[in-house]
Amino acid sequence: MPSSAQLQPVLDRIDADFDNSLERLFALLRIKSISADPAFAPDCKAAADHLAKDIATLGFATDVRSTAGHPAIVAKSNGKANGGERPHVLFYGHYDVQPVDPLNLWHRPPFEPVVTDHADGRKIIVARGAEDDKGQLMTFVEACRAWKSVSGSLPVDVTIVIEGEEEIGSKNFVPFLEANKQELAADFALVCDTGMWDPNTPAITTSLRGLVYEEVKIKAANRDLHSGVFGGAARNPIRVLTYILGSLFDENGHITIPGFYDGVKDLPPDILAQWKQLNLTPETFLKPIGLSIPAGETDRLLIEQVSSRPTCDINGIVGGYTGEGSKTVIPAEASAKISFRLVQGQEPDKIRKAFRDYVTERLPADCTGEFGEHSSAPAIALDWNMKALAAAKRALTDEWGKEALLIASGASIPIVADFKRTLGLDTVLVGFGLDDDNIHSPNEKYDLKSFHKGIRSWARILAALADAPR
Amino acid sequence: MPSSAQLQPVLDRIDADFDNSLERLFALLRIKSISADPAFAPDCKAAADHLAKDIATLGFATDVRSTAGHPAIVAKSNGKANGGERPHVLFYGHYDVQPVDPLNLWHRPPFEPVVTDHADGRKIIVARGAEDDKGQLMTFVEACRAWKSVSGSLPVDVTIVIEGEEEIGSKNFVPFLEANKQELAADFALVCDTGMWDPNTPAITTSLRGLVYEEVKIKAANRDLHSGVFGGAARNPIRVLTYILGSLFDENGHITIPGFYDGVKDLPPDILAQWKQLNLTPETFLKPIGLSIPAGETDRLLIEQVSSRPTCDINGIVGGYTGEGSKTVIPAEASAKISFRLVQGQEPDKIRKAFRDYVTERLPADCTGEFGEHSSAPAIALDWNMKALAAAKRALTDEWGKEALLIASGASIPIVADFKRTLGLDTVLVGFGLDDDNIHSPNEKYDLKSFHKGIRSWARILAALADAPR
Repeated sequence: MPSSAQLQPVLDRIDADFDNSLERLFALLRIKSISADPAFAPDCKAAADHLAKDIATLGFATDVRSTAGHPAIVAKSNGKANGGERPHVLFYGHYDVQPVDPLNLWHRPPFEPVVTDHADGRKIIVARGAEDDKGQLMTFVEACRAWKSVSGSLPVDVTIVIEGEEEIGSKNFVPFLEANKQELAADFALVCDTGMWDPNTPAITTSLRGLVYEEVKIKAANRDLHSGVFGGAARNPIRVLTYILGSLFDENGHITIPGFYDGVKDLPPDILAQWKQLNLTPETFLKPIGLSIPAGETDRLLIEQVSSRPTCDINGIVGGYTGEGSKTVIPAEASAKISFRLVQGQEPDKIRKAFRDYVTERLPADCTGEFGEHSSAPAIALDWNMKALAAAKRALTDEWGKEALLIASGASIPIVADFKRTLGLDTVLVGFGLDDDNIHSPNEKYDLKSFHKGIRSWARILAALADAPR
Repeated sequence: MPSSAQLQPVLDRIDADFDNSLERLFALLRIKSISADPAFAPDCKAAADHLAKDIATLGFATDVRSTAGHPAIVAKSNGKANGGERPHVLFYGHYDVQPVDPLNLWHRPPFEPVVTDHADGRKIIVARGAEDDKGQLMTFVEACRAWKSVSGSLPVDVTIVIEGEEEIGSKNFVPFLEANKQELAADFALVCDTGMWDPNTPAITTSLRGLVYEEVKIKAANRDLHSGVFGGAARNPIRVLTYILGSLFDENGHITIPGFYDGVKDLPPDILAQWKQLNLTPETFLKPIGLSIPAGETDRLLIEQVSSRPTCDINGIVGGYTGEGSKTVIPAEASAKISFRLVQGQEPDKIRKAFRDYVTERLPADCTGEFGEHSSAPAIALDWNMKALAAAKRALTDEWGKEALLIASGASIPIVADFKRTLGLDTVLVGFGLDDDNIHSPNEKYDLKSFHKGIRSWARILAALADAPR
């Protein structure tokens, strides 16, 4: 019997059980699993324990595994029921979330999830992690729950692996993959950490930008100085830092680091033509965030700027006196966090070195630069002809009643490259996020519809994967 | 009897009572009177009360006066004993201190004063405010105490006025001066908030740079954004801020704001020749702070850079994620604190407007700039022929056994202009600070010798002022 024949009762079950699904998501959202801040390490552990316990209720053999950082979860369905003929998928998600600052901009406490109304009437779940990635990963978990509860087993064999350091570069998770290759063997990977095209149009992401994230600290005098005594003669590291960072872009928005664009290719004409059809406008994309004019390379389409072109952003800067009032200080040091989104053809190590050289060459006398590395991941382009991808596309189209698009994402999901390199797996990226989800920002949300139809989508995808020609 | 005839027993008394003088200073240093931070407002009040009580023990009629900010102290000796024929001086100091951050760089708690040994063997008093301005103002108070205790009265009539908002721009103190003009009438003002030329060479400061202190906040999107979703198309306010601030200086260290140097004159050739004689070298001035090359205008002497030329410093900058680790955020806003040291010929209001115009003209689409004003004071040049100045110079030369220099200071003491404007008073600036006192920095100190001989210096100056021809 094809799995699709069993699908309707599974979907009905999802609808009937949806309030409970939501309560299970809320329980996870209440845990403050901020991976970047060591103060929240116990909360990360609590999130791993909680989630493992939840997944174990599906009958999965579930383990919380310690790493050198926050723990990971490995859960395996009691698979290979058909003697290994069924597809075996590796599902990936992450339970860690971004820091919540600036806290004063949240309308509600970030770890007290609620369902509320969006300005335009959409029902939304609001909490840190509501989308990224707790809400998204729970769509898959809840889809598995419905299948198990209705048919007693899953249409395909499933290994679930959940990490706790995605937001800080997965430094300890990649060695974990290496060390557990055999246990994590599968036919391909599924990741739920991407978005839809719009609230009604599902999408599969087939290319992702890479990421190089650097920290630079400029040091000058051996202590903070009084600008009345030393102002004019003492090197000011904030001045040096702003001078260097202020020259990273030319007047057309191009990045000025020598060699930065080496290897970057223009889009094939047919893809560019398709993208023009999608007609991504400032009105739809920028207006909701209070902006009107694309700030990137002036010779590129908006959709290119945010998905197929490499970029640079200064993500943080600090130096000197930043409290209330004034202080006439020349600080001893100033620092910044800078990240680069990379595309196909750019090598992370070369970009990192080019940036460091760029800074170092511009340091004036008496200044030193210290560099720190936060992330390093190449861009990804998936094989558009993967059979699993075609099956997922069909399932998504059925659920949403609208042709699922194959899209490029401007974001980075470094784990996709790691799956290929360490486990030899291709990945299908399906997610239900929206551009206005405020991920990494105050008031993060996930549409209630994304959560509900996301669960239904995965239920359909599991069936479609089972029935697809191998 | 000339006052100088009574001087020796007064100096002897200062020597004999020095341990007690030190203990009285320590009691003041223990009070955390940080004016910039509203959390320390009760400490500022406590410092005012404590100091008023201490001055009252000299027989001064002493009042703590509330203002719209931190309180001020007014204390009057029982003067006019000679029917108004004696000079009447207005002594000014401030009991407020700078914030202490970064606290981790202090070797000891900043409000637990100690006497310890400097690396080169000098005895030093270490605490926030040890020099600026608690240590300095107490040299005058203790000199008055010695005179009163030995001769029962002071050689001149004295009004002491101490404020609590010097470090934050004296916004409420200037209206206070206006409102109490008559009560604060005097022949001239004395201020103890400046430095010596070196640890053995006393100095009177005859010119001071002015100060314009601005805060600018650049705003772009209506919320923090994820750089994976919006990077490349969304305006990044840190990028805008570094671009604008990074262009404030040209390659020769000149400030690029149009009109900034309007009205600035070169030094007269004779003064420039004298200054060259002083031979201020990077070796002596910059090496102690870990630097080697003057960072200012390349066509100016080091001594010009720090005293007679206008400057610009970025005193603080903050935006985006500044915690541990990384966050791929494009922040909604970024801000900086910027100050300008002004010289004769520059008008604070014009400089402020020129800076704001400079920023505003460079704002790209979708960005707004918000400005805040922290301080505004013109530069000061005193009359080198003041009789009081000659008397003070003679007294200092006697005490230190070395000709007192008339010097220019790179710092700003806006109150000097306010005394002239509101009370019609010229000011004599005498102080005992040293370049390595770490004022406004961690591990602020005051040489024990500065404190001791500072008290003796004021005792001599009071006598010299009484005996000087009027």
